[in-house]
Amino acid sequence: MINRIKIAVDAMGSDNGPEAIVSGAALSKERDPKIFYRFFGNKKELVKIISKYKVLEDSFYITNSDEIVNPDDKPSQAIRKRKNSSMGLAIESLKYKEVDALVSAGNTGALMGMSKLQLRTLEGIQRPAIAATLPNIKGEFVLLDLGANIDCNAAILSQFALMGVEFSKVILGKEKPTVGILNIGTEKEKGTPHIQEAAKIIENSYLSENYIGFIEGNDMTLGLADVVITDGFTGNVALKTAEGVAKLCSSYIKAIFSNSLSGNLSYLLMKRSLETLKQKLDPRNRNGALLLGLNGIVVKSHGGADDLGFAAAIDIATEFARVGVGEKIIKNLHNLDSNIRDIN
Amino acid sequence: MINRIKIAVDAMGSDNGPEAIVSGAALSKERDPKIFYRFFGNKKELVKIISKYKVLEDSFYITNSDEIVNPDDKPSQAIRKRKNSSMGLAIESLKYKEVDALVSAGNTGALMGMSKLQLRTLEGIQRPAIAATLPNIKGEFVLLDLGANIDCNAAILSQFALMGVEFSKVILGKEKPTVGILNIGTEKEKGTPHIQEAAKIIENSYLSENYIGFIEGNDMTLGLADVVITDGFTGNVALKTAEGVAKLCSSYIKAIFSNSLSGNLSYLLMKRSLETLKQKLDPRNRNGALLLGLNGIVVKSHGGADDLGFAAAIDIATEFARVGVGEKIIKNLHNLDSNIRDIN
Repeated sequence: MINRIKIAVDAMGSDNGPEAIVSGAALSKERDPKIFYRFFGNKKELVKIISKYKVLEDSFYITNSDEIVNPDDKPSQAIRKRKNSSMGLAIESLKYKEVDALVSAGNTGALMGMSKLQLRTLEGIQRPAIAATLPNIKGEFVLLDLGANIDCNAAILSQFALMGVEFSKVILGKEKPTVGILNIGTEKEKGTPHIQEAAKIIENSYLSENYIGFIEGNDMTLGLADVVITDGFTGNVALKTAEGVAKLCSSYIKAIFSNSLSGNLSYLLMKRSLETLKQKLDPRNRNGALLLGLNGIVVKSHGGADDLGFAAAIDIATEFARVGVGEKIIKNLHNLDSNIRDIN
Repeated sequence: MINRIKIAVDAMGSDNGPEAIVSGAALSKERDPKIFYRFFGNKKELVKIISKYKVLEDSFYITNSDEIVNPDDKPSQAIRKRKNSSMGLAIESLKYKEVDALVSAGNTGALMGMSKLQLRTLEGIQRPAIAATLPNIKGEFVLLDLGANIDCNAAILSQFALMGVEFSKVILGKEKPTVGILNIGTEKEKGTPHIQEAAKIIENSYLSENYIGFIEGNDMTLGLADVVITDGFTGNVALKTAEGVAKLCSSYIKAIFSNSLSGNLSYLLMKRSLETLKQKLDPRNRNGALLLGLNGIVVKSHGGADDLGFAAAIDIATEFARVGVGEKIIKNLHNLDSNIRDIN
């Protein structure tokens, strides 16, 4: 018999309240009956909500917390003052291995800061990164860092490549994922010194067989690389710009179908395909970013995610709980590290 | 009688050959009969092509150049070796005020490098920037820098705000354009020290009435600011990511209309609206970036632009040739400069 997957859920982090979180948890439980939840949050409120979902019966435990991390708490504040919040207690339970993974829709900076302190980074990893998948013409690719590190030197960027490769093996199911460094041109001399140095480290390491060189913003959606690495500032801007443009396209499409009789008629004819397109353009269906490089699986959901979105984040957590990505990253670090030493 | 607008056209810079350039020039001439062209390139070839366009009759002059700037020439190489290329001679003719503006589809780095050397920057401007418009839900906004400066300090960023405001007054026709700084969060403490310092300079200057604060990638398409400023690395990645996602959306839309009978039928019903949507998503219709901050109007067209795209770039050049943006930028610099001195 395969063991249960135990997931810690910070039930208080969502902009849409604990209802969206619990409803999402129920959705995931339907898809994967082996999940057992540890919910962290206001017990009285949670008991009431959870009782509405039959599928959750006998497969949860609630740890009460009346404290929450505020959206505007700085990481340093959260570390000092929010230890006993729903997020803080959830992280602690992951630290003591009471659960296999953790999902929160709360304050990203606080989640990263508290997780780093409690769980520590994987041995040898300089900085954890936030990684997620985005759509391209061929399917999906992995982008990191999405905002944890605004300044990244060459060593850190090359570790992102290593972590991204292991992440993408699990999430994309690719045996030999390709890696590109995001840049403003594909020529070798383009970009900052950090980027050029990172390229050299990667080219001289075991990752050279994955590495395809520099790629530009529009190459990402063309599917040129399975893994795209960049600093957290650029990655965050690219991610949010992509989300914004997808939303803009959706609004254009909506407008042409609702503005005329022929549009209305066409809408009826094409309802199903349009629904699929809507889902493709909807970031909620790809909700869930992994805080990569920690001793423990921490998944960040969009704060504004609804139940569908939160369920997608839980799915990622359960997927990673089944595979030992951390061990693989530590093992491969030795190879990369010798190259970092050669260069620096 | 209003004077002719004289436009220098680097006829050899396009990936699609001089045919696309000349055909684009003819399109613009139809829209604005006051244009007079100075084409730079292989005279024999150009005479043959131009003779096909009746609208260009008696409204052009050809300066022969058998040399071209290669797509992979570095700016430093171009400056040393490509003085007599079609691009080099076109820049020279702008320098000596034989023309009112210049349009090239050639190598961006070479165009910026040679223009900087020949035309010099406007008095007081530390670094010229590349600026262009992008679509948002309300219409369009201006983004700069799009790739001229990968590293930008606070003073340079705040000068971008000043230049962006004057640019947007002309191109968007806004009397009081709003300005935002691209960042990874809207809170005051977010981002790099350079960005935070730039925000302070702007807040304490006459631009404070335009300034709306930090904005994120997805806020750009929501239309939160008329002008978005950022360093050239981030701006280039954002621009190309946006182009890539728009292309991805187009391919999704195309697929749903061509994959079924109901799709084909709907296509017929909605042909006109779909054509409009296609144009909205097509970056060629917004082709043309201005090299802002130089003594002279230099417009860069996409290398891969076709005649439609190149015509859009010429339209921008003629629009700016009619307004004295340079003088306004120099005038306003004095206000901003005192604040830069206060901070640095």
